[in-house]
Amino acid sequence: DQPLLWIAGPCVLESRDSALEIAEELQRVARLLSVQLIFKASFDKANRTSSSSYRGPGLDDGLKILHDIGQTTGLAITTDVHESQQASAAGEVCDLLQIPAFLARQTDLLVAAAHTGKAVNVKKGQFMSPGDMQFVIAKLADAGCENILLCERGTFFGYGRLVNDMRAIPQMQSFGVPVVFDATHSVQEPGGLGGATGGNRAMVEPLARAAMAVGAEGLFTETHPDPDKSPSDGANMIPLCQIESVMRRLVAIRQATAQIE
Amino acid sequence: DQPLLWIAGPCVLESRDSALEIAEELQRVARLLSVQLIFKASFDKANRTSSSSYRGPGLDDGLKILHDIGQTTGLAITTDVHESQQASAAGEVCDLLQIPAFLARQTDLLVAAAHTGKAVNVKKGQFMSPGDMQFVIAKLADAGCENILLCERGTFFGYGRLVNDMRAIPQMQSFGVPVVFDATHSVQEPGGLGGATGGNRAMVEPLARAAMAVGAEGLFTETHPDPDKSPSDGANMIPLCQIESVMRRLVAIRQATAQIE
Amino acid sequence: DQPLLWIAGPCVLESRDSALEIAEELQRVARLLSVQLIFKASFDKANRTSSSSYRGPGLDDGLKILHDIGQTTGLAITTDVHESQQASAAGEVCDLLQIPAFLARQTDLLVAAAHTGKAVNVKKGQFMSPGDMQFVIAKLADAGCENILLCERGTFFGYGRLVNDMRAIPQMQSFGVPVVFDATHSVQEPGGLGGATGGNRAMVEPLARAAMAVGAEGLFTETHPDPDKSPSDGANMIPLCQIESVMRRLVAIRQATAQIE
Amino acid sequence: DQPLLWIAGPCVLESRDSALEIAEELQRVARLLSVQLIFKASFDKANRTSSSSYRGPGLDDGLKILHDIGQTTGLAITTDVHESQQASAAGEVCDLLQIPAFLARQTDLLVAAAHTGKAVNVKKGQFMSPGDMQFVIAKLADAGCENILLCERGTFFGYGRLVNDMRAIPQMQSFGVPVVFDATHSVQEPGGLGGATGGNRAMVEPLARAAMAVGAEGLFTETHPDPDKSPSDGANMIPLCQIESVMRRLVAIRQATAQIE
Repeated sequence: DQPLLWIAGPCVLESRDSALEIAEELQRVARLLSVQLIFKASFDKANRTSSSSYRGPGLDDGLKILHDIGQTTGLAITTDVHESQQASAAGEVCDLLQIPAFLARQTDLLVAAAHTGKAVNVKKGQFMSPGDMQFVIAKLADAGCENILLCERGTFFGYGRLVNDMRAIPQMQSFGVPVVFDATHSVQEPGGLGGATGGNRAMVEPLARAAMAVGAEGLFTETHPDPDKSPSDGANMIPLCQIESVMRRLVAIRQATAQIE
Repeated sequence: DQPLLWIAGPCVLESRDSALEIAEELQRVARLLSVQLIFKASFDKANRTSSSSYRGPGLDDGLKILHDIGQTTGLAITTDVHESQQASAAGEVCDLLQIPAFLARQTDLLVAAAHTGKAVNVKKGQFMSPGDMQFVIAKLADAGCENILLCERGTFFGYGRLVNDMRAIPQMQSFGVPVVFDATHSVQEPGGLGGATGGNRAMVEPLARAAMAVGAEGLFTETHPDPDKSPSDGANMIPLCQIESVMRRLVAIRQATAQIE
Repeated sequence: DQPLLWIAGPCVLESRDSALEIAEELQRVARLLSVQLIFKASFDKANRTSSSSYRGPGLDDGLKILHDIGQTTGLAITTDVHESQQASAAGEVCDLLQIPAFLARQTDLLVAAAHTGKAVNVKKGQFMSPGDMQFVIAKLADAGCENILLCERGTFFGYGRLVNDMRAIPQMQSFGVPVVFDATHSVQEPGGLGGATGGNRAMVEPLARAAMAVGAEGLFTETHPDPDKSPSDGANMIPLCQIESVMRRLVAIRQATAQIE
Repeated sequence: DQPLLWIAGPCVLESRDSALEIAEELQRVARLLSVQLIFKASFDKANRTSSSSYRGPGLDDGLKILHDIGQTTGLAITTDVHESQQASAAGEVCDLLQIPAFLARQTDLLVAAAHTGKAVNVKKGQFMSPGDMQFVIAKLADAGCENILLCERGTFFGYGRLVNDMRAIPQMQSFGVPVVFDATHSVQEPGGLGGATGGNRAMVEPLARAAMAVGAEGLFTETHPDPDKSPSDGANMIPLCQIESVMRRLVAIRQATAQIE
């Protein structure tokens, strides 16, 4: 009867104040629904489609904001790292380090993340099978990581589109790790907006419901008070004002699923 | 609060007695769980990988068995038709005609099925998007069909493998028709057994749970008292002795889903 | 040093006169370039996206036109059949029967085509691997067909798009049959035009060049004096006035390829 | 009438002597066939499936060997970089920097490569469409890179398999850059050997022929005196003793293609 692990936040950091506003609303919802929240925001979007897109405050300023939010709210914190030399600093602020899907096979990055001693959540590459992720687990374990999570976030399905193979959840669980379902990035449409990634927000909840029924231990959702103004991934985000009702429905399906096991 | 539509049976007809045994057990489970059962069996497997594989009793003998089962049990009956000249005879015995996925775009077959006046359930082609199915609906409606169902049964995902895009369920529902999830054929591995289609029975329930959480109106499962002896699709089937427990769990997820709408 | 087998024509029959105009121009080019032409046109487009699209003159009138063109020009003739009861009549007029890709696994249709005693050209299903086609060959051979060809015409690659895996050519040749490359239908974009199939004519020649270099024995191209007015597949067709120059380039690559073997 | 650009070498560096042996044989063949050779070897395999696999001599020792080979043979040199801090050192030794496919969207790495002033060859991500590569070009150009190449090396096509969409060659050429075809990595079967990547060497030449006929400006092939003993990608490599005959055939197709333009 573990509570749902809920990784949530605004995609990229914009300001301390906007991040804190989101964190506090998420915390309110998490308490209401008895889920275990980890606040997530990126200090750098390191693989934007276009180089003219907003990338974030950068490592130093970003980690300062994240630390501040953790201190202010008491929430656990996570962020994503992109090159091995970022892991150590991020590990001092975060409880969980996230490895981006494109980088799921970069050995140096995985090893550096493991060496922080923190938990590591690796997104399955869009170009990988669920079974391939056992080798990622082995790389982390060989480097001393004791708390590994895997994350399903969609698999390449023809140009400009991802698909979630829901079988990935039990397949990756069979390696002995909890599996998080990333409902936000699964609905991306890479290149769908010309020089930017599109998406389909309406499909976030149906896919998240499916993942809950299949038994995912965690859920990753990005949110924003005004998604269409978010500098990144707005097309895929649940508006902050809808988070409580969406999460209430997802938790209900999770509870029904837990009862039948 | 519609009850779940449950299409179930033994894939291909072997004998009247074996079909009746299965039908009666399914009927018992359906009553217990308050789901609406339609008994399904094929008179002919018209697209076996190899021509040496068992095809079934054929149109005339097969329809006689189906008619007998309908009369004996009172169950509604469905079967699949493969060429337009089969539709009329099948329509006299069945309450619902099923169009195979490979044939989802064959206009003459769709029109012939529509002309029977019976309900028609079209499986989405493995080579079609959910959106493409709106034109299938239009072909049926143009030919006078008033009761159309669509069925998600997996989409081509690289050689020898299918994937279920769970977004297909709300997308096809948006065309105003109920959607059935075919949990058995979705786990096929075409060509996976050399001259026969393989599969992975263990993934039937996870995928069916997902479909229930997403809101599918119907579920299609094939079963057999001894799946490994089934002449077709045994690798994908739920053993008959497990049907009750599997369906109990699926109905529980469906009920939780219905309550949150 | 076999000459290239060239299957070409206008997709669907519109009238005897338009078909004859195209046949005569193709015949002129075939003589000039020493390729072996088989004239192809469909009497019925049996799986149009929409039921309101033009389907052709039908079996009886269509076969009359094809017979007339064969008699007038001396060309070999091919057409596609969609249900088993069409094969016998088509076999009396045609030298080669074509099985559509969606129907590549329909056993009755394959057997009926084999029973005509004519050569049979089966398009690889968009949902099949090259290796799966060995079972199609076996079905035909078991039914007495002595002259089997396979055709690569694209494989499902995400919604609305096909891809040609050029490895399919040597893989299918390894089963002991000649392989035709269908350059026209390979560039289809199913559903790309709303209620019709789109395509990208500019990619016909690059893909056909590749197939020639890989060693395909045959080439299938559709053409029209005014492709944008063609009732079917116009988006994928080479304009008739460009056929000579395109074929000249393709034959040059084929000759270079033949010389290095 | 540009000569073919040929990027070739042994995948990963093993020793100075073995690399030099390969370089000299490739140089002999390149002179014989009048192609422009760039010697390629990796100092580090940064994304091996398993962490126990051989990675190479590392940055410092690897670049020393590459420098030595360039000085000894007079050949142009290329290698791949994986994190931004490697670019500067690699740029001092190499004429061309290669960006791995998994990293094709990592902005910092692209910018660092551009800042070396050297030519940059970016492999299309297995998870990207050809059209998406225009944004990669823009990132490099914005950072001052004046000599950009793109490389087709296969696209994700279901778990454990890649496919080459040959349309990618003209599509990426339409952005104004030369396109290299990587025949070695295109035949990878990721995860196909359990904890290692498999492949199918027999398909290297058919695919390379196709790419030559489509008009690729460059070709990338890996080779080894004894591929089955290569520490990486041996399953995909052309044995060194066959390189001359394979290249002779590919150059013949390229010449035939050039003559028809």
